[in-house]
Amino acid sequence: MSLIVIGTLAYDTIETAHDKREEILGGSAVYFALAATCFTPTALVGVVGRDFHAEHIETLKRAGVDLEGLEIAEGETFRWSGRYEPDWNTRHTLDTQLNVLEHFDPKVPDVHTGARFVFLANASPQVQARGLDQVTAPEFVMLDTMNLWIDVARDELVELMGRVDAIVLNDEEARMLTGDDNLWRAAQKVRELGPKLVVLKKGEHGAFLLAEDWRFSVPAFPVEDVVDPTGAGDSFAGGFMGYVAKAGDCEPSTLRQAMLYGTAAASCCVEGFSTDQAEGLSMEEVGRRHGELLRMITP
Amino acid sequence: MSLIVIGTLAYDTIETAHDKREEILGGSAVYFALAATCFTPTALVGVVGRDFHAEHIETLKRAGVDLEGLEIAEGETFRWSGRYEPDWNTRHTLDTQLNVLEHFDPKVPDVHTGARFVFLANASPQVQARGLDQVTAPEFVMLDTMNLWIDVARDELVELMGRVDAIVLNDEEARMLTGDDNLWRAAQKVRELGPKLVVLKKGEHGAFLLAEDWRFSVPAFPVEDVVDPTGAGDSFAGGFMGYVAKAGDCEPSTLRQAMLYGTAAASCCVEGFSTDQAEGLSMEEVGRRHGELLRMITP
Repeated sequence: MSLIVIGTLAYDTIETAHDKREEILGGSAVYFALAATCFTPTALVGVVGRDFHAEHIETLKRAGVDLEGLEIAEGETFRWSGRYEPDWNTRHTLDTQLNVLEHFDPKVPDVHTGARFVFLANASPQVQARGLDQVTAPEFVMLDTMNLWIDVARDELVELMGRVDAIVLNDEEARMLTGDDNLWRAAQKVRELGPKLVVLKKGEHGAFLLAEDWRFSVPAFPVEDVVDPTGAGDSFAGGFMGYVAKAGDCEPSTLRQAMLYGTAAASCCVEGFSTDQAEGLSMEEVGRRHGELLRMITP
Repeated sequence: MSLIVIGTLAYDTIETAHDKREEILGGSAVYFALAATCFTPTALVGVVGRDFHAEHIETLKRAGVDLEGLEIAEGETFRWSGRYEPDWNTRHTLDTQLNVLEHFDPKVPDVHTGARFVFLANASPQVQARGLDQVTAPEFVMLDTMNLWIDVARDELVELMGRVDAIVLNDEEARMLTGDDNLWRAAQKVRELGPKLVVLKKGEHGAFLLAEDWRFSVPAFPVEDVVDPTGAGDSFAGGFMGYVAKAGDCEPSTLRQAMLYGTAAASCCVEGFSTDQAEGLSMEEVGRRHGELLRMITP
């Protein structure tokens, strides 16, 4: 197994302008793994409570996710509840119950400590660092984070940024981390904090990658009916890292294709609630969207 | 002369978070023509007052703009005054003095009525229609507009949309015209009103083109220091139409390249106040940016 993700599993309650769903499967590592397994076998390291449904274990296993690193702890699974404004651009967190996440200490199973590709999905920088410590010689590590950690654990986050190859941020996080409104300048400032590659996600406006001497920009895949954007960023990262791990190298041409595959995977995710789309995600559909994206950007 | 633009010339007073400039050269036709002449000779049809400075006539002539269709009328030149919020996304109009524009009746000189390529820069749909009436057999007509006309002259605008090949709109205008927040759906609804091609500009997020059975998306050229975004849309249109007129056809491959050249021209425009950048705009610099854009979007 060459790709592992360390991150969260959750039960989400989500309100959109059109619908509301309670206690549905979510979490950064879940969305990531469901997208990444389309490309390559993926191992998940995370924790759930005793209330986690067996059917969701089945969902992940059926998709091909390795759950050797899934800890089932005393207590309840992490809960998150949020509401989206009709324009999808604003998300309000209504409730967060850390539950078993509060004392989460990731344990990478021995069979996976040799992983070549590592994704540190959104979690506290301390948890992410402890996870990374256990991987002996990773070739490519990508880090995700969120505004909360930039706010309350900035020093730890910046220290961790010095240990990874790439970071993936959204526009708001990049502005918050650097204090710069111009996204290209902000990405450059993020690079100066450590990661050689900065992937900046702009939601419906696509994403770009900034490296030392090259950059790559990709539009979002056109989605006419967004149902639930939760997990889009993690699905993007799953498509990106899944493709990189499958290719087995970090050449610019691989990373550029990975941006397209990440975009394709994210577009599938937002067309349904929870992991509905991701569960049924196939390399065939991701490949079809990748082809359509290619036609859309080729002069 | 195969390309003509019918539109406005103005003296603008502009406030940004960093600077303020008074009575500087502006207007939709001015920005368009300065970008378009990098590609192909361009004729301008418009009106100014007796107060228009001879040096600005010289500026346009020196750039190679044909002013046979420039009327110098009794009264004062059109004035516009606006202020940008620090994020550049919000523009407040502080003052508008139509002056000679109030009774503007465009007269296309006989030597230009055979123009093959026509750009109807922002003006009232009635003025745009009267301009278009005078061109005998245009091969490709592109229309621009603004929120004001969508608001006060919607019927005339929609009627005119049935007579043109392409329309260029920004995101706000597309949403206002169609009532649809999703830009791809909005662009499709605009197509259904007549124009075979819809070019939708998204400022710092780039632009896309929607045709019947293909689409093309391009990111903005990365500009680290925006000085004044006034005229960016007209410069985009100037680069787009200038390239199309130079190529002499409307093939998809031509239109895709035109999107890149429009993007390159717009990026030059926003790096200076008024027409400072556009005046010095050279095919060399636009070509350099086109090349950089190509590298940025090629997987």
